Amino acid sequence: MGDRLKFLLDEGDIPESWYNLAADLPSPPPPPLDPGSGRPIGPEALAPLFPMALIQQEVATEREIAIPDPVRDVYRMWRPTPLHRARRLERLLDTPARIYYKYEGVSPPGSHKPNTAVAQAWYNKAEGVPRLTTETGAGQWGSSLAFAASLFGLEVDVYMVKVSFHQKPYRKALMETYGARCVASPSTETETGRRILAEDPDNRGSLGIAISEAVEMAARREDTKYALGSVLNHVLLHQTVIGQEAIRQMELAGDYPDVILACAGGGSNFAGLAFPFLGAQLRGGPKVRIVACEPVACPSLTRGVYAYDFGDTAGTTPLVKMHTLGSRFMPPGFHAGGLRYHGMAPLVSHIKELGLIEAAAFNQLECFEAGVTFARSEGIVPAPEATHAVRGAIREALAAREAGEERVILFNLSGHGNFDMQAYADYFAGKLTDQSYSEEELAASLASLPRVAA
Amino acid sequence: MGDRLKFLLDEGDIPESWYNLAADLPSPPPPPLDPGSGRPIGPEALAPLFPMALIQQEVATEREIAIPDPVRDVYRMWRPTPLHRARRLERLLDTPARIYYKYEGVSPPGSHKPNTAVAQAWYNKAEGVPRLTTETGAGQWGSSLAFAASLFGLEVDVYMVKVSFHQKPYRKALMETYGARCVASPSTETETGRRILAEDPDNRGSLGIAISEAVEMAARREDTKYALGSVLNHVLLHQTVIGQEAIRQMELAGDYPDVILACAGGGSNFAGLAFPFLGAQLRGGPKVRIVACEPVACPSLTRGVYAYDFGDTAGTTPLVKMHTLGSRFMPPGFHAGGLRYHGMAPLVSHIKELGLIEAAAFNQLECFEAGVTFARSEGIVPAPEATHAVRGAIREALAAREAGEERVILFNLSGHGNFDMQAYADYFAGKLTDQSYSEEELAASLASLPRVAA
Repeated sequence: MGDRLKFLLDEGDIPESWYNLAADLPSPPPPPLDPGSGRPIGPEALAPLFPMALIQQEVATEREIAIPDPVRDVYRMWRPTPLHRARRLERLLDTPARIYYKYEGVSPPGSHKPNTAVAQAWYNKAEGVPRLTTETGAGQWGSSLAFAASLFGLEVDVYMVKVSFHQKPYRKALMETYGARCVASPSTETETGRRILAEDPDNRGSLGIAISEAVEMAARREDTKYALGSVLNHVLLHQTVIGQEAIRQMELAGDYPDVILACAGGGSNFAGLAFPFLGAQLRGGPKVRIVACEPVACPSLTRGVYAYDFGDTAGTTPLVKMHTLGSRFMPPGFHAGGLRYHGMAPLVSHIKELGLIEAAAFNQLECFEAGVTFARSEGIVPAPEATHAVRGAIREALAAREAGEERVILFNLSGHGNFDMQAYADYFAGKLTDQSYSEEELAASLASLPRVAA
Repeated sequence: MGDRLKFLLDEGDIPESWYNLAADLPSPPPPPLDPGSGRPIGPEALAPLFPMALIQQEVATEREIAIPDPVRDVYRMWRPTPLHRARRLERLLDTPARIYYKYEGVSPPGSHKPNTAVAQAWYNKAEGVPRLTTETGAGQWGSSLAFAASLFGLEVDVYMVKVSFHQKPYRKALMETYGARCVASPSTETETGRRILAEDPDNRGSLGIAISEAVEMAARREDTKYALGSVLNHVLLHQTVIGQEAIRQMELAGDYPDVILACAGGGSNFAGLAFPFLGAQLRGGPKVRIVACEPVACPSLTRGVYAYDFGDTAGTTPLVKMHTLGSRFMPPGFHAGGLRYHGMAPLVSHIKELGLIEAAAFNQLECFEAGVTFARSEGIVPAPEATHAVRGAIREALAAREAGEERVILFNLSGHGNFDMQAYADYFAGKLTDQSYSEEELAASLASLPRVAA
């Protein structure tokens, strides 16, 4: 029978607290700024959008933040998620590397996103908020918030990037099955949407626009708050259950990673796996290489600048310091919708600046090729986002073979591709190409970054 | 935190043998007959279609049949599957019943079908067969065989019922991701297909036709065998890992079912959960009610006759005694494609005749309503087939509430609905109706049953 393939934990082993990387950093990340005054914002600036508990988590400095029982109770529906040893992939690659992957696709909506969706829905419920708005790109976040809201009896309006809304009707059907309302963005429901449609009736939407719409609706209605699926500190925090479980599971495997990889769009999936390992390293534990895998077509970490920028297209959010392509950057229409965001989480950007992590960018075709290789050896069809981590892991495994060295590789398989089969069908039909943006557009987007007093 | 939600086993707890119900039955099922002579067929009649190991399993009488190590090794990729306690559904229904479900949707292709697909692929591989043909309706079986074949390096041609082929392009994409070829049936590749298309160029296909095509191709080519996803004894046998695991998991839960439910199309999913419990009962263990849940629109157990019939439309298979609507019965186009088969497995039919199990038929709309209720409480969106078991379990739970009695309910959630979201979209759009066949057509189909000497 050979070595074990899966390392499982019991539901009693779900972490009792989230891990806050801020507690272990050598320096804190720069604070968010008010775009008008250029001064750090206080908690009250976020109060119209988020419940107070989440605002407090946004600026928390303690290392451990207790997970409320009702949230852990929901986590038990699918957590702890399995850690797999990719023995068949190793054999196929003929590599001396040992490859492990943490599989978050076992959650009901099929990705890591419910880790924070459930927490956010619960904190809103606990503070008496009956209604949430949010945006979604590929639909993983929207369906996860819809799932979480259905369990706590909240209403949800999801603004879905229009091109994805039409490409992925089944994600909409999934949100509706969970009881949420799903609207194509830009929509006629918001001032932002109406303005954009007046200028460009055929606008296909972007995450930045959808965020603007969802924020506007939350700011306008007393009974409504906003939920974001990535980027913010509290969102990254909630994802750290992934890495905490993985540390225990690697112990069960009797191994420790030399290199950790995860795809990075807004950064929460990456942070979820990486932060607990990085924290252990910062507290004197084993050193581990950590690689954020992003698309060549939307390369915030590898091609963006580290600067204050808006989180959305309309410029309604506070300014946050991050690796950004500029909030007006419109990424080309590649299939990994969850990686089509102009910026990177401030906390991830900060540790990149500190030299604590690496970044690598991959093209669309090599990622789908890696996804098919993975499906034919490990069985699971990865979401297009997750294929970036698979591609990165395969590169590491081949480098280990080249070097003739053992190497322990751990990556985060953030979700399955069951709702993304059109992308695979297009890949087999030869319709996919490597996507790129124009250097002029990138330069123009970067030139329009907001000016902030140093 | 309350009671446990999941009862997990370790990969070392995967059963070491399949359970053969034939060993414990008070009388054996009637044998398959040669349609020409009316006499029982010998193993040689099946040799062109199946490897010898599977033919031996078809007639085996020993209670336990060892699972080959390479098959268990693949099972470890997702087995043991979890047993869940449906606490949220119980609360929603306000029932004193305790509801458990075994969840087979964690397999890479998302259903119970790989339990036999892996076994069949391996036995063919072991006997030097490089190529398989099969049929598929909704696509769960075809994608499962494609998955299994990819792991053992076999080629697969899948004949997919034409209406599903066009309704479910993503199932085809999944099969191609695993490396299989998928053809709409009726096709021009076979004599059967060409004959049917000549008579009716717009024929939408049926499982019976697709079986005829796959069997014809396997019979014609030396290098090719045929694989069936349900009905036959060896297929049911392979599924008994489900019930064996469930028995151990119910022990972990400190409970034992009063009633077991599973959806039944060809019967393998039903048998997988039910046979090990029934076997325990036949050997003197606790008595348990066992309910096969089928669609009103294709009700082989509740409206069919118990008679010898062909397994396929073209009449190329041996005759098997089963509950059948007649092999010319064309079920209406409801969404649970896996339940659109005219007959029921001979072994399931036999125990129905012996009075060891019950059957219940449910309409399409009540099943989708149950599926949505389940998704909004337990998170998982059930496959349309599986909603029949959910509907049956909810009926039992409400009956327990009515009677004011505790009742332990166990059902098999055979797969997720990630590839069936069009059906849910249609449901929410009000496009679904309860389907029915015409009594005249059923009568005509039954009148054309083959005549067999008693």
